Parts: sequence; C-alpha cells; structure tokens
Amino acid sequence: MIKMSQPVELTLPQPYLLFLGDERDPAHAKTAFGLRDWARASCIGEYALPESTVTTGLPRFTPEDAYRSGARSMVIGVAPAGGALRSTWIPALKAALEAGLDLISGMHGRLADTETLGATAQRLGRQLHDVRRPPAGIPVASGRPRTGRRLLTVGTDCALGKKYTALSIARELRARGVEADFRATGQTGILIAGGGIPIDAVVADFVAGAAELLSPDAAADHWDIVEGQGSLFHPAYAGVSLGLLHGTQPDVIVVCHDPSRHEVAGHPGFPIPALEEVIAQNLALGGRTKATIRCAGVSLNTSKMSEADAQACLLNYSTRLQLPCADPIRGGPALARLIDAVLGGA
Amino acid sequence: MIKMSQPVELTLPQPYLLFLGDERDPAHAKTAFGLRDWARASCIGEYALPESTVTTGLPRFTPEDAYRSGARSMVIGVAPAGGALRSTWIPALKAALEAGLDLISGMHGRLADTETLGATAQRLGRQLHDVRRPPAGIPVASGRPRTGRRLLTVGTDCALGKKYTALSIARELRARGVEADFRATGQTGILIAGGGIPIDAVVADFVAGAAELLSPDAAADHWDIVEGQGSLFHPAYAGVSLGLLHGTQPDVIVVCHDPSRHEVAGHPGFPIPALEEVIAQNLALGGRTKATIRCAGVSLNTSKMSEADAQACLLNYSTRLQLPCADPIRGGPALARLIDAVLGGA
Repeated sequence: MIKMSQPVELTLPQPYLLFLGDERDPAHAKTAFGLRDWARASCIGEYALPESTVTTGLPRFTPEDAYRSGARSMVIGVAPAGGALRSTWIPALKAALEAGLDLISGMHGRLADTETLGATAQRLGRQLHDVRRPPAGIPVASGRPRTGRRLLTVGTDCALGKKYTALSIARELRARGVEADFRATGQTGILIAGGGIPIDAVVADFVAGAAELLSPDAAADHWDIVEGQGSLFHPAYAGVSLGLLHGTQPDVIVVCHDPSRHEVAGHPGFPIPALEEVIAQNLALGGRTKATIRCAGVSLNTSKMSEADAQACLLNYSTRLQLPCADPIRGGPALARLIDAVLGGA
Repeated sequence: MIKMSQPVELTLPQPYLLFLGDERDPAHAKTAFGLRDWARASCIGEYALPESTVTTGLPRFTPEDAYRSGARSMVIGVAPAGGALRSTWIPALKAALEAGLDLISGMHGRLADTETLGATAQRLGRQLHDVRRPPAGIPVASGRPRTGRRLLTVGTDCALGKKYTALSIARELRARGVEADFRATGQTGILIAGGGIPIDAVVADFVAGAAELLSPDAAADHWDIVEGQGSLFHPAYAGVSLGLLHGTQPDVIVVCHDPSRHEVAGHPGFPIPALEEVIAQNLALGGRTKATIRCAGVSLNTSKMSEADAQACLLNYSTRLQLPCADPIRGGPALARLIDAVLGGA
C-alpha cells in the first residue's frame, strides 16, 4: 500500500508471504498484523505451522504456492519472547528458500548465523535480509537543502505512535491526491514500506547522513513522511532523535504524545516534558538545518480512552496549544484539520 | 601522565613505543607528538625506519630493546595522507609483534585486515588494538545519577580544542591536588589516556550509554574531565554531542571556541552560533539528566593570534559573557580563574 518512490539502499523483495511459525499468542504477531493493516497489497498471504493458532485472516499458502502466486520473500511475522529464531521454524524457513523465496527478519540475531539457513541461501543464491542491519556506505550528512517537502513525526517519548501517525498522514495525503511516501526508520516500518534505514542501528556519526539518504531530493510538491524515533528528552536516545531531526530537514513536524503517560517508559524519575517545551525545542534545534520548520499539530494516542473522553482530550489539548490535535487511529474531522495544517502553511 | 583510575572496556597496554615509519613530514606525526606532549610517562621512546626524518626527540629503540625496557605495545604514531597502513611498514610492525609488543592503531582500517599482521598476532598470541573500534557490550543509558563530579568540554564546532582543553583542565586540577581523570572519546585522546571509547563510532542507540560507562561512579570529590565531540549545532554530528552530554551528566561544562572561525568547518553556509546561544542550549538540554549543570567558562583557541591580541580577545569575551575565559595553551591567571570557577560552584 505505502510504497517508496525512490529506493534507499535497503530494499526488500515484495510481495511478502507472512510466516507465523508455531505461534499461539496473537500479542507476538504484531509484525504480521502491522503488515496486514498497513501493507495489505504487499502481502500475498500467510503460512503457519500446524501448531499455530494465530491467523491474520489472509489466504493460506505453502511457500511453493506463494512463490507461484508471485511472492518473492517470506517475512518472519512473529516475535516470541526473547526475540530469537525458534529451532522449530528452521525446516519451514529452509523450505521457503528452496521454494524460491528470500527470507526477511526484523529480529536481533542474523539469519545467516543459523548455519542451515546461511548454507541453503548461499547454495541457492537467495538473500537473507536482516532489516535491523543498516546498509553499508551511509555518508556523513552534508546539511545541503533538498527539493521536495518533508514531515517528521517527533515525540514526547518512545513507543507512543510516531510510526502509526506517519503512516496515517501519508495515507491521508495520498487520499487527497498528494504525492506522499512513508519513510521508515525502524524495523516494523521498514517491513511495511519495503525499505528504509534502521536509524538507531546506524553508527552515531552517520545518523544525520542516513536521514538525508532516506528522504532525498524530490518533486517540489512531493511529501516524504518520515517515521520519528525516540525523543529529544529521552535520557538514552535523544541523540538519535536530534540526528534524525537535523538530517530530515523537515518543513513540518507533528508531535506525538500519550496523555496517559507521565514518566519516560523504562526510565522512572524522568517526567514526560510539557508539549509546549517539546514543540519549542524541536523547532529551535530543527531550525538549524531548516529555518522555516513549523509544527502542524499534535497526534494524541487516546487508545486507552472512551470515545467521549478522547474527544474531550483532543479538544482540551487543541485549545491549550492552539494547534490541531487528532488521534489518527480515530480519524474524523480532527484528523482532517491536522492534514489541512500540514499542507496549509502556517 | 594522565591515567584512568578505573578502566572502561577499551584499555591499552602501556608503556608505548612510538612508531614513526618512514615519515618525512612532521605534520603527519601529530599522534606521536600528542603522546609525547600529553602522555610522556607512558612513552618508552620512538622507533623509526632509516628513511624517516621525523623525530619526537625521545630515545630511540628497536622493538626488542623497547620490550626489554618495559614497553608493551607499539603505537602507529603517524597518519600519512589517505590514512592507510603503508606496505613499507609491514616488516617493522611484524618485528614488533615478534619482539613481544602488541600493536595499536588509530587508523581507519583494521590492523587484522593486513593478513601478515593478523596471522602473526594470532600465532604469537599478541593483540591488535584498533582504537577507532568501540568495545562490545555497551549498554543503553540508564539516566541513573552517579557519584563523583564530571566536567564536559563542549564546543561551537569540531576540531577547535575540546581535547586539549580537557587535558589541560585535568592537569591543572591534579596540580592543585584534586583527583581528576581525563576521559577520552576520540582516537588520539584514547591513545593519550590509555583507554576510553571512540564515541562517534558507537551505534547511535548506545552513545549515551557509552558516556555513562566512560565516567562511572567515583569518590565524591573526584572529577572526570570528559573530552567533548562535535557541537549541538553541527549539521552532521549534533546527535553525537547530545548523547555525550546526556550520558556524561556533567556538573560543569566548559565551552570551547575559535574566534577566527565563522562557519562550521566543511559545512559552508552554517554560521558558528553565538557563544551565548551555545551555552544556553547546552545547559537547557544537559539539564535533562543533570539538573544542576552549570557553565564554568570558555576556552578560546587563540593559536593564530599574537600574545597581545590573545589577551585582548580573552578580556573581551570575559567581559561580554561575564565568565572566565582562558586559552589553556597560554595558561596564566586567566586559566587559574577558569579552574577556580570549575571548582568553586556558581
């Protein structure tokens, strides 16, 4: 669905066959569900071992049938506790290679480190894609202005909706006939987009350079919607966020926030900063490489609220900040106003 | 001379024998000169090929004699244009391994990638130390406050004196009887200190964690003087600077500046920001992990000025900023006032 108009160095063969292994817990299948929800047109179907009770609801294929139907890779769509490849999967992964499919993994370990897979892939000339590994040859950032328009989702913390917000905005823009590409910076986003750069795995000196590579020169009315990472106020990851902000040179930022969160996840004692401060600091620092940077509005994650509470919360933040505030998952007029502000200038 | 009281993961065997190769240009021997000037007690002497015309003035040794006199490694002290190992050095490097010495390099390429050296080191059980490679196992930053005191040199750009300033401050503190360690974050600093972490080569997610590792818990009156990198205003490297600032949790920053520089080196069109802005932004962002952070003063690189011009410049900046301003290389009462401010609180 969301496709990249211009490949960066890391690109993935599509369409995908989604592998569910022997998984019995739907909470471990977020990658497969994310691909179904955000990249349906890139997914041929699913393949699960007999022991699995999880399903995406997509058509079921064997690797052989999937290849014949056009699939070009099999994505490991589940992440069991521990995040490692399970030995029970190996025969199925090997069978996929033998059927003609590449393998794609967003897991920590390298596929090639499993000897059977490395040897089989080499013998057959298949590729093993570890999307947590950045491509080689990323340059140091130049700071040179680029053509086209860019939006970066930034946040008050990690894991509160920067990817979903970017995907939603890209989809809304395309629905209005605006040329827009989602640019992925994390493993799930990369699988959805079919390419991208895992920005937090890049060597520190090259983070801004990776961001420049990810959203290259484009037509004047084309938008790159870049998936943000971390937060300028995060005690561990702020440097990643700043490199991404500088390298992206965004015309527009959208700030993502979860009103129910009061401390940085995993870092008790670090309060979530006020939205006013987050907006001001992103604009101040982002202005270094993009003087005209502006904030179009706020994306609130209201997933824990009732519809009535969510609408009251959106109105409350919108009044307080004098900016459009929307929950992209809820959509509606609030999201339309946010998109208007993205496109509309100041 | 400057030694680390507590090793971080990357430590180097000392004392060093300084290798000058067949170098004929003193400008290419900055590493050897830096070690002579800042780590004299860690240097046994030098070893040069007959073709070399460069000397540090230290005693000359063969690798065999150096080992018998206590040397435990040979440092490549020259960096010819291109930054690669020269084939004319290989027999001498192999001889050093055979004499019992490890090899240490700050160059881009890995020593072990030269087959003769890799094979010889493996056969003899010697180590090949590439100080541009970060150690394995660097954790994600915790943000946990640490005991002891810390100073970070920050800057208005790259390559204008952050390392020399940190080394000078550590030396001055020790001269006053204060326990102080220089903490190195770049290859030359690491060679001088005998350890450290090449912060700009760390994977982005772990930069703040590396900074935490580099300046661990210490006695309440102990100072870690941390070598800064880059600048928060640098279009390519700001993320590294922010991660280092957050992870170091400095009690005190000293801002390093070259008054003759008006644009970011290598990035025309990016003006050097005003010192007031650099101080304010470092304090604002640094306050996230160290609420009591303060700026003790400014280190000015006046190397291109006459003594009279330099003194006028220091007075000018000091009056304008209402902070101690010194050129550590010139020393004198200005430097003493800067050290007073480091120790003295606000």
